[in-house]
Amino acid sequence: MYRPLDVDTIIDYVREHPMAAEHVNTDGEFESVEVGDGNLNLVFKVFDRTSERSLLLKQALPYVRAAGEDWPLSPERAAFEARALEIEHRYAPGLVPEPYWFDEVLMLNAMENLGDHKVIRFPMMEAKRYRDLGATIGDFLARTLYATSDFALDAADKREIMQGFFNVELCRITEDLVFTEPYLPDAPRNRWNPRIDDDVADFQADDQLKAEAAKLKYRFMNFGQALIHGDLHTGSIMANDHDVRVIDPEFAFFGPMGFDVGAFVGNLFLSAASHEIHSRDPDRRLDYRRYLLGEARAAWTTFEDGFRGRLAEVSSPSWGSRAFQDDFMHSVLQDTAGFAGCKMLRRIVGFAHVADLDSIEDLDERARAERIAIRIGRELVSSHARIASFDDVLRIAGDALEVSHG
Amino acid sequence: MYRPLDVDTIIDYVREHPMAAEHVNTDGEFESVEVGDGNLNLVFKVFDRTSERSLLLKQALPYVRAAGEDWPLSPERAAFEARALEIEHRYAPGLVPEPYWFDEVLMLNAMENLGDHKVIRFPMMEAKRYRDLGATIGDFLARTLYATSDFALDAADKREIMQGFFNVELCRITEDLVFTEPYLPDAPRNRWNPRIDDDVADFQADDQLKAEAAKLKYRFMNFGQALIHGDLHTGSIMANDHDVRVIDPEFAFFGPMGFDVGAFVGNLFLSAASHEIHSRDPDRRLDYRRYLLGEARAAWTTFEDGFRGRLAEVSSPSWGSRAFQDDFMHSVLQDTAGFAGCKMLRRIVGFAHVADLDSIEDLDERARAERIAIRIGRELVSSHARIASFDDVLRIAGDALEVSHG
Repeated sequence: MYRPLDVDTIIDYVREHPMAAEHVNTDGEFESVEVGDGNLNLVFKVFDRTSERSLLLKQALPYVRAAGEDWPLSPERAAFEARALEIEHRYAPGLVPEPYWFDEVLMLNAMENLGDHKVIRFPMMEAKRYRDLGATIGDFLARTLYATSDFALDAADKREIMQGFFNVELCRITEDLVFTEPYLPDAPRNRWNPRIDDDVADFQADDQLKAEAAKLKYRFMNFGQALIHGDLHTGSIMANDHDVRVIDPEFAFFGPMGFDVGAFVGNLFLSAASHEIHSRDPDRRLDYRRYLLGEARAAWTTFEDGFRGRLAEVSSPSWGSRAFQDDFMHSVLQDTAGFAGCKMLRRIVGFAHVADLDSIEDLDERARAERIAIRIGRELVSSHARIASFDDVLRIAGDALEVSHG
Repeated sequence: MYRPLDVDTIIDYVREHPMAAEHVNTDGEFESVEVGDGNLNLVFKVFDRTSERSLLLKQALPYVRAAGEDWPLSPERAAFEARALEIEHRYAPGLVPEPYWFDEVLMLNAMENLGDHKVIRFPMMEAKRYRDLGATIGDFLARTLYATSDFALDAADKREIMQGFFNVELCRITEDLVFTEPYLPDAPRNRWNPRIDDDVADFQADDQLKAEAAKLKYRFMNFGQALIHGDLHTGSIMANDHDVRVIDPEFAFFGPMGFDVGAFVGNLFLSAASHEIHSRDPDRRLDYRRYLLGEARAAWTTFEDGFRGRLAEVSSPSWGSRAFQDDFMHSVLQDTAGFAGCKMLRRIVGFAHVADLDSIEDLDERARAERIAIRIGRELVSSHARIASFDDVLRIAGDALEVSHG
């Protein structure tokens, strides 16, 4: 029967689980710690001191942890995560934690404990750099999105996988929180810094912006290109100095590829906007901004090159032409720009914010960073269907960041 | 156990079926006839002479009837037809045959026998006109496509319905026969009039055309906007002088709306091209051409007006803006143009032809009509992404038809 575990019961659970012996000494001396810092789940690390080995166990709760028990959410999302992690691990081994087992009663995923990796959002607030961050994410995206697209999968196989990803409840969270509520003046879950009231009122009155956001929402809901991660912000990436991993694919479903690329790129731009405050020294600020925009470019370039390289090997005559492939990559690029913009705006005006900005205690300073992010986000959403190259995306971000300090 | 029925066993089947008594007198005096003229199924009409009532029973065969037993095809398609017919009947009652029951063992659908309705393709070869043909099809499309879209359905309900329409086998037929093989010089199922060898070679060498056809194929495979009929040519429409019905939704799945609108429009244009030969008298030819193009316009206009009228009532704030709705209708229009073109070309170069053209016995005359149709089809496919209004679609058809006789 489903029951939430705690730091004590998780140890008994591991001792008794038939799969655990492959990964730890189940007669060992265990220590456990609860490390969940996300919005939705319990996350335990269990260390076996006798073998120096460990496990990570992630259990879905039946409600949104960040909102409390009055926002119920089916723990079945752990099953979506299990299925997605298995597929990601198959096509991008080494870029996600290795999955060990899924417990469909407790709605719990056991997986590789990544050791000294940290969620990158927080160190990046202190201008931390990760080797090959953008390239690794671009590679992850090229591998997973290509492998689950019509270019790699037979239509019957794609449909069969798709049947495991009717992730309605979590898709609805995205539809509501990313695409709908930020554009509504009276959505009760919205919150924002009171210093940007005028900016928010202005963008919520922008009919052209709202129509473009609606188009992107419709595309999110209808364009089942590939199995996307669905939540690929910098809180879903862990890294140490030599290794980058993508975690938390519980929002996975068949959607538009650009949603994943855009989530990553948009979060780098949010970080860059926040460094207008975090990095007081102008040289260091400019330097880190260049790093972030460079990683955004590396992500796109590696994704595009990787995807094109795979497309070049495709056997179906339909997808073989250069004109088709160019048009395809161009449409993913435009989606990337639009979704990046949506993902930025929702972090400033919607329910779920990012620590990059919310950690800025002075509200006027925070507003200065937020206005830059709003400007980038609005421009990306409004003009996404006119984007011709990734340089256009970087120019939009660069221009808004330049204005801030001249 | 599944077994194909015949004109005798179908009578025993009806006598014994518990649902039949609602529709005929099961103690009555029965006559039956097999009327299947399609490519895939057995179709029986069973008349009860004592009550003057009747039934139509359509049984799926385990192979493609037109190709013989060496092209196997799962009779499960009857289940897709049953589910689609039930939904079409719910949202467009009176525009489809009333479904009576579905037999999942025999893969047989029992439904209203339409009486003196005829499949419209054949009378149209003799310049037959049907009252409100285009408007009725436009109304059918507005009703069914709206009702199964995200504008009318909650995301969870849409996903649930979608699970009944993983129609992989019949989608693959469309992918292969409509979007792939006509563009390949060496596809073994292709056939065409030897008098148009040069025209076919020319279009199969047109890289821009092939790239646009590939984009439309990709959109067909990935853009699950609504439950589409999937095969809405003039062989899937029956009518008499006062009533029009859509039949045969076994290709139904969640796809792009424009595929249905385009199938109908493209088949009207095929008819118009064929009348360059069928109608020898210039005045009558011009007159019928005007009728056909007028019905194409009526289909689009009624569809668009009906869809916009429903969108105006929608409660979600995302879909309420005029700019979103205009963009949405514009994208369906461009899809309509592109898919209409694909549906025309495949009927001249692919496996399945249309009687409108194939009935022209003189191969040189047939080639003249086919060249007009190829010209319309190529222009629609190549330029679909630049179509601004339905007038553009009609102009493309009209220009190609004018050239023929000046």
